[in-house]
Amino acid sequence: MTLKEIGEFGFIKKISRGCLIRKENIVRAIGDDAAAFKTDPDQLTLITTDLLVERIHFSRSTIAGYDLGYKALAVNLSDIAAMGGAAREAFISIAIPEDCPLDYLEDIYDGIKNLAAKFNVNILGGDTTNSRIDLIINIVVHGTVAEKELLRRDAARSGDMIFTTGFLGDSKAGLHLILNDIAADDESLEMLIKAHLLPEPHILEGRFLAQQPGIHAAIDTSDGLSSDLRHIVEQSNVGARLYADKIPVSENLKKFCTRFDFDSVKYALSGGEDYTLLCTASPETADKIASEFQKEFKRPLFPIGEITDTRQMELIWPNGRIRSFSPSGWDHFKEQNK
Amino acid sequence: MTLKEIGEFGFIKKISRGCLIRKENIVRAIGDDAAAFKTDPDQLTLITTDLLVERIHFSRSTIAGYDLGYKALAVNLSDIAAMGGAAREAFISIAIPEDCPLDYLEDIYDGIKNLAAKFNVNILGGDTTNSRIDLIINIVVHGTVAEKELLRRDAARSGDMIFTTGFLGDSKAGLHLILNDIAADDESLEMLIKAHLLPEPHILEGRFLAQQPGIHAAIDTSDGLSSDLRHIVEQSNVGARLYADKIPVSENLKKFCTRFDFDSVKYALSGGEDYTLLCTASPETADKIASEFQKEFKRPLFPIGEITDTRQMELIWPNGRIRSFSPSGWDHFKEQNK
Repeated sequence: MTLKEIGEFGFIKKISRGCLIRKENIVRAIGDDAAAFKTDPDQLTLITTDLLVERIHFSRSTIAGYDLGYKALAVNLSDIAAMGGAAREAFISIAIPEDCPLDYLEDIYDGIKNLAAKFNVNILGGDTTNSRIDLIINIVVHGTVAEKELLRRDAARSGDMIFTTGFLGDSKAGLHLILNDIAADDESLEMLIKAHLLPEPHILEGRFLAQQPGIHAAIDTSDGLSSDLRHIVEQSNVGARLYADKIPVSENLKKFCTRFDFDSVKYALSGGEDYTLLCTASPETADKIASEFQKEFKRPLFPIGEITDTRQMELIWPNGRIRSFSPSGWDHFKEQNK
Repeated sequence: MTLKEIGEFGFIKKISRGCLIRKENIVRAIGDDAAAFKTDPDQLTLITTDLLVERIHFSRSTIAGYDLGYKALAVNLSDIAAMGGAAREAFISIAIPEDCPLDYLEDIYDGIKNLAAKFNVNILGGDTTNSRIDLIINIVVHGTVAEKELLRRDAARSGDMIFTTGFLGDSKAGLHLILNDIAADDESLEMLIKAHLLPEPHILEGRFLAQQPGIHAAIDTSDGLSSDLRHIVEQSNVGARLYADKIPVSENLKKFCTRFDFDSVKYALSGGEDYTLLCTASPETADKIASEFQKEFKRPLFPIGEITDTRQMELIWPNGRIRSFSPSGWDHFKEQNK
């Protein structure tokens, strides 16, 4: 058997055996956005980590040091957000090839430090070493959340409404522009590139949702709506129904899709790295939560569908056509469909 | 200015500015073996992280997967040991090149899991992704220590005795055998290779020392005795005097040095990766601690010198000759002296 055959999630399943040898006080282990465990009578400790490798996740020739550092931290903050937590401390490991200029490295740290300061996160350590060819960055974030406020992937219930805290698909469009070297000749394309390079982690949105009694499950949209929703569906033993015309697509993405002849709903379904939060809320509380969210953040909490008991994921088109859909987001080891 | 000119420690100094934006509850940040911060009324949280990169730290062709995984975790456990802590949770990030067989990966995780189980450490998550050429492993370990038991680098006092919890130089000799492809044709060479590949993290020794009132400063010997002792000396604003004939050299290393014509004291001074603990103890308590250590672990706590107020590091040879010495351990970015 090869890694490609079993894929990232198969590999994780394989290596997970025998990892948990002391179960007391562990609330979430492998399989959620961050690990959650009890170190204090009321608080949970959250830890998440993310590894970025040159020529896999980024190319030094196309990303500014600042953006790289910012994003490396942002994806970790997003994982803490998805657990409803406050991010507290960050640890940066970096392996540096000889040809990497000191200025570029300082820019990376500036990107990290600026985002860290914005969310009141201390950088407390890490590791520095060298590398033969590729620049490598691993960031770890430590956070906390009250035990009763923890948001988890396995808590969705049939009948829940599904929400996203922001637009979907913008980041994928930005990536398309970067990879195809298409100049951002208007502001809307610039905004898409920015959505890809400098995503805003929804830490405050996560804290808000964590404090709403009706919120059940949550995850961040890192791999793509369909792929991320599947984690909630599988771990909660439920199904999901999405409405194609409710999936929030920004004006920028609409313009982009018209211009380059893409289907914006497919973009939103399959595009990863938006780093919004997906959450599910009991039907009784959903309206109130959405209106409170609007008051707090001056933008909508978008309802996009509902949790079912079918164990299927289905997409309803405006013409009433129902299609079951499967994840089309990222799996790091399987071949991607072009 | 280039990275090579400023070196690893210069780089860390440079990037450390602006990292700590919220100082309350932070006990140790960048500059000790692990970060230490308060999350609980009596306990400190410890976090350490270590990044291993193929062709810098190891070569897949010369290290078994099991040994690689074991050592990747061991170096982190050693950092927790140096703070006097108990290791609790580990997080494994791995980036995998396409040509890396699944069996090798499973061996890595077996090495990690076996060592984790030995010290009662849960593996709670991490990140898996791919890499173009080099295999990359980043491990994070979370631990705890009572605030009053924390061991730190900056607490040595003039007059303290300096101890090491084990032999020094064995790991460097093992590395020499591996790098020069010298067959381990007797048990003593095998033991040296084992000292390099499967170092025992001194977690229990660290917990023991943490509970002795007279222990002041501690660090683990990862970069080499002279280099690691310098961290204690600089951070504590003191000096140190070592006695060449007291530096504990194993019988295995003596045989090796005779056979290959090396100076065993120089080996012990400059060799990194032994992962013993260096500690300093007040002169009044030193004897008692050493005899309690002997009782507990059935082997000596080796006294190797004393802390002075000179801000110099000096080495006394048996003939009375005094030489000041400077660190000759690892700095990841500067050219190594051959």
